Amino acid sequence: MDSRNIRLAVIPGDGIGVEVVTEGLKVLEAVGTKVETTTYDLGARRYHETGETLPDAVLDELRGYDAILLGAVGDPSVPPGVLERDLLLRLRFELDHYVNLRPVKLFPGVETPLGRSRPEDIDMVVVREGTEGPYAGAGGAMRRGTPHEIATQESFNTAYGVERVVRYAFEKALARPRRKLTLVHKTNVLTYAGDLWARTFDRVSLEYSDVQTDYCHVDAASMFFVTQPERFDVIVTDNLFGDILTDIGAAIAGGIGLAASGNVNPDRTAPSMFEPVHGSAPDIAGQGKADPTATILSVAMLLDHLGLAEEAARVEQAVADDLVERQTGWAGRTTHEIGDDITARVAG
Amino acid sequence: MDSRNIRLAVIPGDGIGVEVVTEGLKVLEAVGTKVETTTYDLGARRYHETGETLPDAVLDELRGYDAILLGAVGDPSVPPGVLERDLLLRLRFELDHYVNLRPVKLFPGVETPLGRSRPEDIDMVVVREGTEGPYAGAGGAMRRGTPHEIATQESFNTAYGVERVVRYAFEKALARPRRKLTLVHKTNVLTYAGDLWARTFDRVSLEYSDVQTDYCHVDAASMFFVTQPERFDVIVTDNLFGDILTDIGAAIAGGIGLAASGNVNPDRTAPSMFEPVHGSAPDIAGQGKADPTATILSVAMLLDHLGLAEEAARVEQAVADDLVERQTGWAGRTTHEIGDDITARVAG
Ligand SMILES: CC(C)[C@H](C(=O)O)[C@@H](O)C(=O)O
Ligand SMILES: CC(C)[C@H](C(=O)O)[C@@H](O)C(=O)O
Repeated sequence: MDSRNIRLAVIPGDGIGVEVVTEGLKVLEAVGTKVETTTYDLGARRYHETGETLPDAVLDELRGYDAILLGAVGDPSVPPGVLERDLLLRLRFELDHYVNLRPVKLFPGVETPLGRSRPEDIDMVVVREGTEGPYAGAGGAMRRGTPHEIATQESFNTAYGVERVVRYAFEKALARPRRKLTLVHKTNVLTYAGDLWARTFDRVSLEYSDVQTDYCHVDAASMFFVTQPERFDVIVTDNLFGDILTDIGAAIAGGIGLAASGNVNPDRTAPSMFEPVHGSAPDIAGQGKADPTATILSVAMLLDHLGLAEEAARVEQAVADDLVERQTGWAGRTTHEIGDDITARVAG
Repeated sequence: MDSRNIRLAVIPGDGIGVEVVTEGLKVLEAVGTKVETTTYDLGARRYHETGETLPDAVLDELRGYDAILLGAVGDPSVPPGVLERDLLLRLRFELDHYVNLRPVKLFPGVETPLGRSRPEDIDMVVVREGTEGPYAGAGGAMRRGTPHEIATQESFNTAYGVERVVRYAFEKALARPRRKLTLVHKTNVLTYAGDLWARTFDRVSLEYSDVQTDYCHVDAASMFFVTQPERFDVIVTDNLFGDILTDIGAAIAGGIGLAASGNVNPDRTAPSMFEPVHGSAPDIAGQGKADPTATILSVAMLLDHLGLAEEAARVEQAVADDLVERQTGWAGRTTHEIGDDITARVAG
């Protein structure tokens, strides 16, 4: 890959996904890097028209890109789980996005619902496992619809899958000033999975004597996100716990409109995929009300992943500057206007 | 049972459990109801001395009481899960505590980390399923300790188990002024279990046209606890999601020192068990630093469960009054002193 010429697949998806991706691309172009984009029409509309979620041929094509930018998928008109499982999670699984990287950072000028917290208190990165755990899709039901129905849901955890994400998290922690890594699980109840996670974490930690380690049950960690967010630097956790923690993280760091994420394949055997943490928000779709900032920050993560650290920093700085301005009466802008303002900062 | 003569089993447990239970009992006695207590030595000490967690004979004896008051169990010297699974969860399962009732209520005068929230914004009850889900203990590991290990963890959900807790939650919602019930799950990923929960919820809701219903994914709900707690009145959810949500609930309602809970067997085929949400906190044990308020509020729930509504209200009012006083320089009291002060209010 010539990193100065990004071949990007774009999946706008549903609802506000389309709107925020437009702004993300605008910012990406302003960076000055050559980008070739190809848009893929996947999501609720395609599903309703053709019954397709992610055709194999499309998946194969996607493998050929340098990266993927995704808006959001999901719509109440589609049965729960169809687009999530067969499109979004299928992409994460097939492209082996075993690291779901989610920074939780309070930018200066951004209001947090936590009355006392300051930007220096909320600055962490959640390394969420992305390819196994309760997300494996395993389970079943029998006697469905009868009083004797049973429904199961299984969490799959492998030494292979846990070790690679734990190693990634240790490297991440090592590269940050505080060098602290917290494992979050529920070892006292989910004893089989918890035992594998805890043993792996302890074993790998022996290779990282410079990283301070810590363990927290998921219930306590969720509480500490609210009462003592400064406790955390890097967190490594399971797919489902990471899902929950990063939404709390979004809440304390100024809301879901600002939360970026990367579904990363660190081995680069397939393209990584960047997307805002928020969903398709059908209730506000098409009204220019969505905040494109989470997508723009996801674009920064994308640039960073592709080795364009300077460009990534420029986008992040533009967002940071825009966020400071918002305090002083810049509220009430449309999706489009926020995108334009950040683009102007990146370009200028 | 003669409700004026409570036969109570007490399990102080480990760490601060012992200290807070002492205060809870002091308050219970001040209520003026006749109480006969029998203390059971269960927890880390007994485990280390005899290897026993919950002998069958003890469990059988416990079945004979009107209610159980538990402090907290768990200690780092015991392998994770042993006391939780074989003592605490075994009690919940064997005594069929299918409702884990956890109020989340911000008392006037109590500081919340949520800068803008007022007591009227945070007043909900979480009805957490208590006998199945990922807590069933199902799962296993193979090739343990090798690079080919796999570890599974299974969530069991039955129509029987889901329907009874959902019905309980509808009744609870009906009895509260707002009459709103929210189902929290992750139906878009945990599709088998989620489908059973959602279908059951919808079906039972047809019998409760006066209750307004709502659904929220667990990640979004966790976020809304922080950004819009006023959204919620009664919540019904799975065992694991309820565990996480109620710790966030404790955080927003003034901390784990105030969070009460009841492990309730609504059919009264066995005694219900009341306990603070917090753990044994070995780091502060024996120092008089623990706040007994959560246990005292659990005692109020116990009284209410035994039909002593007036007495329950008196204890809750004493706590409420004490909490208002705390604002004005009553901080820094010991466990003992807080217990004494609340006892005096109840008695006086
Ligand atoms: C849409 C859903 C399947 C997804 C998840 O649970 O991972 C979302 O909540 C997220 O966090 O990206
Ligand atoms: C100690 C532990 C097993 C327990 C649970 O997970 O239920 C605790 O966290 C609770 O919430 O009562």
